Amino acid sequence: MAKELKNLTKRSEDYSKWYNELVVKADLAEQADVRGCMVIKPYGYAIWERIQQSLDQRFKETGVQNAYFPLLIPKSYLSKEADHVEGFAKECAVVTHYRLKANPDGDGVVVDPAAKLEEELIIRPTSETIIWNTYKNWIHSWRDLPLCCNQWCNVMRWEMRTRLFLRTSEFLWQEGHTAHATREEAEARAKQMLDVYADFAREVLAIPVVRGVKSETERFAGALDTYTIEAMMQDGKALQSGTSHFLGQNFGKAFDVKFVNKENHEEYAWATSWGVSTRLMGALIMTHSDDNGLVLPPHLAPIQVVIVPIYKGDMELDALNARLEAVTEKLRKMGIRVKYDNADNKRPGFKFADYELKGVPVRLVMGGRDLENGTIEVMRRDTLEKETRQVEGIEEYVAGLLEEIQENIYTKAKTYLDEHIYECNDYEEFKERVKDGGFFLCPWDGTAETEAQIKADTQATIRCVPYGVSQENLGNDMVSGKPATCRVVVARSY
Amino acid sequence: MAKELKNLTKRSEDYSKWYNELVVKADLAEQADVRGCMVIKPYGYAIWERIQQSLDQRFKETGVQNAYFPLLIPKSYLSKEADHVEGFAKECAVVTHYRLKANPDGDGVVVDPAAKLEEELIIRPTSETIIWNTYKNWIHSWRDLPLCCNQWCNVMRWEMRTRLFLRTSEFLWQEGHTAHATREEAEARAKQMLDVYADFAREVLAIPVVRGVKSETERFAGALDTYTIEAMMQDGKALQSGTSHFLGQNFGKAFDVKFVNKENHEEYAWATSWGVSTRLMGALIMTHSDDNGLVLPPHLAPIQVVIVPIYKGDMELDALNARLEAVTEKLRKMGIRVKYDNADNKRPGFKFADYELKGVPVRLVMGGRDLENGTIEVMRRDTLEKETRQVEGIEEYVAGLLEEIQENIYTKAKTYLDEHIYECNDYEEFKERVKDGGFFLCPWDGTAETEAQIKADTQATIRCVPYGVSQENLGNDMVSGKPATCRVVVARSY
Repeated sequence: MAKELKNLTKRSEDYSKWYNELVVKADLAEQADVRGCMVIKPYGYAIWERIQQSLDQRFKETGVQNAYFPLLIPKSYLSKEADHVEGFAKECAVVTHYRLKANPDGDGVVVDPAAKLEEELIIRPTSETIIWNTYKNWIHSWRDLPLCCNQWCNVMRWEMRTRLFLRTSEFLWQEGHTAHATREEAEARAKQMLDVYADFAREVLAIPVVRGVKSETERFAGALDTYTIEAMMQDGKALQSGTSHFLGQNFGKAFDVKFVNKENHEEYAWATSWGVSTRLMGALIMTHSDDNGLVLPPHLAPIQVVIVPIYKGDMELDALNARLEAVTEKLRKMGIRVKYDNADNKRPGFKFADYELKGVPVRLVMGGRDLENGTIEVMRRDTLEKETRQVEGIEEYVAGLLEEIQENIYTKAKTYLDEHIYECNDYEEFKERVKDGGFFLCPWDGTAETEAQIKADTQATIRCVPYGVSQENLGNDMVSGKPATCRVVVARSY
Repeated sequence: MAKELKNLTKRSEDYSKWYNELVVKADLAEQADVRGCMVIKPYGYAIWERIQQSLDQRFKETGVQNAYFPLLIPKSYLSKEADHVEGFAKECAVVTHYRLKANPDGDGVVVDPAAKLEEELIIRPTSETIIWNTYKNWIHSWRDLPLCCNQWCNVMRWEMRTRLFLRTSEFLWQEGHTAHATREEAEARAKQMLDVYADFAREVLAIPVVRGVKSETERFAGALDTYTIEAMMQDGKALQSGTSHFLGQNFGKAFDVKFVNKENHEEYAWATSWGVSTRLMGALIMTHSDDNGLVLPPHLAPIQVVIVPIYKGDMELDALNARLEAVTEKLRKMGIRVKYDNADNKRPGFKFADYELKGVPVRLVMGGRDLENGTIEVMRRDTLEKETRQVEGIEEYVAGLLEEIQENIYTKAKTYLDEHIYECNDYEEFKERVKDGGFFLCPWDGTAETEAQIKADTQATIRCVPYGVSQENLGNDMVSGKPATCRVVVARSY
């Protein structure tokens, strides 16, 4: 492993290759034999579980309840909302039969032609249609509103070019679907959930994001507005990390979801939907990690502290065990996720390399001489700095260090982001500079034509109209030269 | 709702109808528009989440890690283990295409014939095949063993006759898959997980179960042994509530999973798998509930205590709020899941009926006179008994009461089970009595023929060879008259 780690491609050599290798070597995920699908390995899944727990708690604090809706959607549902079908009916897995039978002409099994479905079923690419078809029976009066459900589930979109976590045919996500009595309330909910995502990214993932609203072209199929958080990867590319959609009454109308309002009039319900997925794992990796492997923010890390004894012989091990198990126990009581690794089937050097690769924030090491001296070695993963300290009181020191690392990681990412946001009004300059990555704040005339032109010329897209950026004195669109209607973030993206 | 509740069919009238109505009226689940699939509603899902959390913790304490494997399985994988294909390749959802396109002859979308898959994919009915195909790359040496993964996911088996929670085409479950270096270790793990299930059923669900091993006929397809926990529903029928399989080297051989043992020889890995599903929701309902609705064991209930004020006017409400919010807060600090319901859009009578229907274990009610007297009304859901107590110290009383209810519910179910287990050696007597339900301990000659005969004559099946039942002085098989090889539990089942 120590040798393999040494072979991790450097980011400066080939960022894409570095990413692919890291995902596999840090035991996060691997390609499945099934085209475009992935296996999320135990260590990767432990990180995803912590993302889930943290988000789930935040959702529930805003009044959201979890539920579960069917995996399969009748084909006809997709057609009920005109824009939605355009966006999602294209590349999806279609179930046409419900039985196999022994192959009459040889080995194995074949599809039984007699078991053909009357109407084909689609594996959900997203669940607006089936959920709003259900909401029809749940919503009758303003008293039934707001209705705020979320589900954690798998979804499938048939992707031609896939990359682990970033784009896979099957992925895991959560999708929230809310119904409201008024437009204002629905819009406020859509924005609220974007803030939940941004706060979570900041506080748990230590990822700074740009919040904003998508252009019409980049909107979710069926939405009136799509709010987004855009993170910047270490190569300057954008990664859309979470979206929240204000759906207006589109799905209320498509699925005939009406309610009687306080004035006793019938109205269509207003909708939002919002989701984040296992893509966040990609954002996490490409925001913090380095040439030695993963760097995990302490608030997220499944293992925050690993403790390794270095010993000669059983007697020394016994003595080290006694001291280090006490440290482990005290850290655990303080609520810190700690692993004491005294396994004898791997050498210390191997363990060090492996925990570095896996991004464990703090490593404590004690040898025989440390034991005599009452000292312990502390290594922090973010800077790889080592120091020797008194073991007495080390637990409180480690607790403080974890918070320091959390902040340091965030600050580093935030500094990188701030230093790579450029104001740019000139298209020639843009075309030249965008190759090196970064977010470009550019005046835009609001037309799909210039948007398409930028994409065709540079592969960059309008990521969003950002919050908190001045929309005055815009000048002219950098492509068309026509008066700009807003200033947008343009960037290449994953 | 109070009126609807009154309309809940009595168990004595029609047990099956009572069940179906209760599932819907208590907001647990409902039929989806998609054939055989269900929507798990927020309250039902909250119960399932608590089942998940509790089991997940127990699994992890035994060294199991969660992971995630693909939803879709190449058709050919199913054929690799001979028995397995017989059991699972029959009724399953088959994905044959990966794209829809606009209907050239009219509205909507149709399957694009150009997007036909080379090899059809099956929605997992269970994941032994795809997981062992993955384990092939993870297991090389005895150092890689044991490997113990679990996944929480959806699976699909195309069922013709479905019932909410008990038998649905799509259902949620967990499936654990372990690989071991020795037969002994694998067998021990299979038995260990059965014990985890039985302890969980006892301690959390308050469901007493019979543990045992399945007959060859009833075994999991591909297993050498299937261990089972069988619960008894209120109508005396059995409900298989969890199974754990010792798979021998069947999947190791089928997917070529070999490891180098300590003696430097290559061997095939030994396997187990084990699972429980949303079926447990059915077991829960049919073990404890009554004609007034759901009865939930306090250790499981998402809401353990509900507090309702009865008031005239805002001033009285303010005073009640002050007192009851203090009670709520104290209960919460004691770790009790409590809901304070002072919503003014529903009347107390409606709330009472609704919380009864939903099985909330303890209800506290306070009115204006109670406030003056320093009293509060306590209602326990299991017996529906009410008493008025001093509000001072009510929190400690409630904490004790919750434990008392948990034990009482279990004891009631255990008494029922014990009273409905009969020793029976005579087939005529059996045929007559089995109609009324119950578990029959009968001598069996060990042949599939007598097993089939019993099923044909009575619809009853051999549930298991139970643990802890004397296997001496067996006498003769009650059907064939031949010498019995063991004493088995025979019962009708869900």
